[in-house]
Amino acid sequence: MQSIRTLNDMIVFLQQRGDKKRVAVVCANDASTRYAVEKGKEMGFIEPIYVDGDDKEECARRAVALCKNGEADILMKGLVNTDVLLKAILDKENGILRPGHVLTHVAMAEIPKYEKLLFFTDAAVIPVPTEAQRRQQIHYVNYVCHALGIEEPRISLIHCAEKVSAKTFPYTVDYLEIIAEAQTGKFGRCIIDGPLDLKTSLDSVSLREKGIHSVIDGQADALIFPDIVAGNVFYKTITLFGYAKTAGVLQGTQCCCVLPSRADSPDSKYYSLALAAI
Amino acid sequence: MQSIRTLNDMIVFLQQRGDKKRVAVVCANDASTRYAVEKGKEMGFIEPIYVDGDDKEECARRAVALCKNGEADILMKGLVNTDVLLKAILDKENGILRPGHVLTHVAMAEIPKYEKLLFFTDAAVIPVPTEAQRRQQIHYVNYVCHALGIEEPRISLIHCAEKVSAKTFPYTVDYLEIIAEAQTGKFGRCIIDGPLDLKTSLDSVSLREKGIHSVIDGQADALIFPDIVAGNVFYKTITLFGYAKTAGVLQGTQCCCVLPSRADSPDSKYYSLALAAI
Repeated sequence: MQSIRTLNDMIVFLQQRGDKKRVAVVCANDASTRYAVEKGKEMGFIEPIYVDGDDKEECARRAVALCKNGEADILMKGLVNTDVLLKAILDKENGILRPGHVLTHVAMAEIPKYEKLLFFTDAAVIPVPTEAQRRQQIHYVNYVCHALGIEEPRISLIHCAEKVSAKTFPYTVDYLEIIAEAQTGKFGRCIIDGPLDLKTSLDSVSLREKGIHSVIDGQADALIFPDIVAGNVFYKTITLFGYAKTAGVLQGTQCCCVLPSRADSPDSKYYSLALAAI
Repeated sequence: MQSIRTLNDMIVFLQQRGDKKRVAVVCANDASTRYAVEKGKEMGFIEPIYVDGDDKEECARRAVALCKNGEADILMKGLVNTDVLLKAILDKENGILRPGHVLTHVAMAEIPKYEKLLFFTDAAVIPVPTEAQRRQQIHYVNYVCHALGIEEPRISLIHCAEKVSAKTFPYTVDYLEIIAEAQTGKFGRCIIDGPLDLKTSLDSVSLREKGIHSVIDGQADALIFPDIVAGNVFYKTITLFGYAKTAGVLQGTQCCCVLPSRADSPDSKYYSLALAAI
């Protein structure tokens, strides 16, 4: 499989593969969700199942049931509040969270000033990941990278500097343990390093100017943010000022879930659907 | 005074004002510091005092003494480690920290996709501000905005969402108290709101799409970040991907201090010097 370097490469890959994923779309009563779903159908990689009705909670439950029963491969949010849909997804009896897994968000971005696709987690779901949750985030992001043809993803553990500060930022100590585990192959094929700041993760010139050595060498494929605030700031900054195109999916569930926010662009919803179909 | 909307406006303002600030430059043995200082001299708003020598700690102490004795107006870091210079600045007996003040970092950015200058704090010094430190950060950033002709700065208290989450993010509760204090005039003339995410702080369309009302109306002049990691991620992202020009100074000291990092561009050092001269 060829490496996918742009969001358009991802669409081409899906078209070449040729199979269609069935998408349960909850309350697609807004123009941007309709656009995303119909464009995915037109491009040939999805088959929508529209789940509409006056009772949005009932719609959410019905769509989740379609996923649970194997009648749909992807769940997508339309004009329904995120918490209503999450409640149905996380329901202990009828929900679709995989046992022993955590729900987290993986995003990808195509940024004009970066030479390849960039994956990052978590800008949207887990407020402050525990050590165990961070390890699951790494597993998920690694899985998504591999699915897109990146054989040995370079994963950077983000901080504001390259020094471990045990007292103020205990997660930087955890970073060292994660790196040691990665070297034994615990996370599968990937390269992990950190703590690194955003610039030394993504720019080899800055890395060298700072006199730092890192196996990632300023060419990270994926960024693990220490908390949702840092991740969210990154996500919002690249979309506002970095001319980025983005996509995002939930991980940890039996089938891939697309839960865009209302402020996401129609194209972002379309690319998210494509990422879910990978 | 006319409002300054670009970094070049700031240079023009300094030239029109016509006075020269004396800058104690510690170990200007690198090309980018020399460039910044000589360009400031050429443009007529600074007069350098080069403090060089083999013993960098001694140079740092001598430069700080010049500031303390009123023989220099600005302190600038050249090829000397930040911690060496900070040690001299913060020295209890011979340093220049104002009694009862905290040292913090204020940055400004000119971003092509934003219609005015954007100020933010703290991307570089205080790891996790206390309530008291956050209030001082607001005072400083408000002071800098006023000095640059922004009569009523719109100051946004940054989070990943617009909801207060007392349990996970206690600072969001503090935000409400700060807003109440601002309404009584405690911070001087300014408009403060939060918690707001980065997008709703800086984009009125996104604000309305989310159905949120804010007095800042997506047009913030200044951003207060909850911690150094979020601030640092923002700073690095706009410089890497947002085509931003930036400047930054330390606040809390008797005279303005410019402590760029080695990875900052020569122009960033020059604009920082200009900001310090305001």
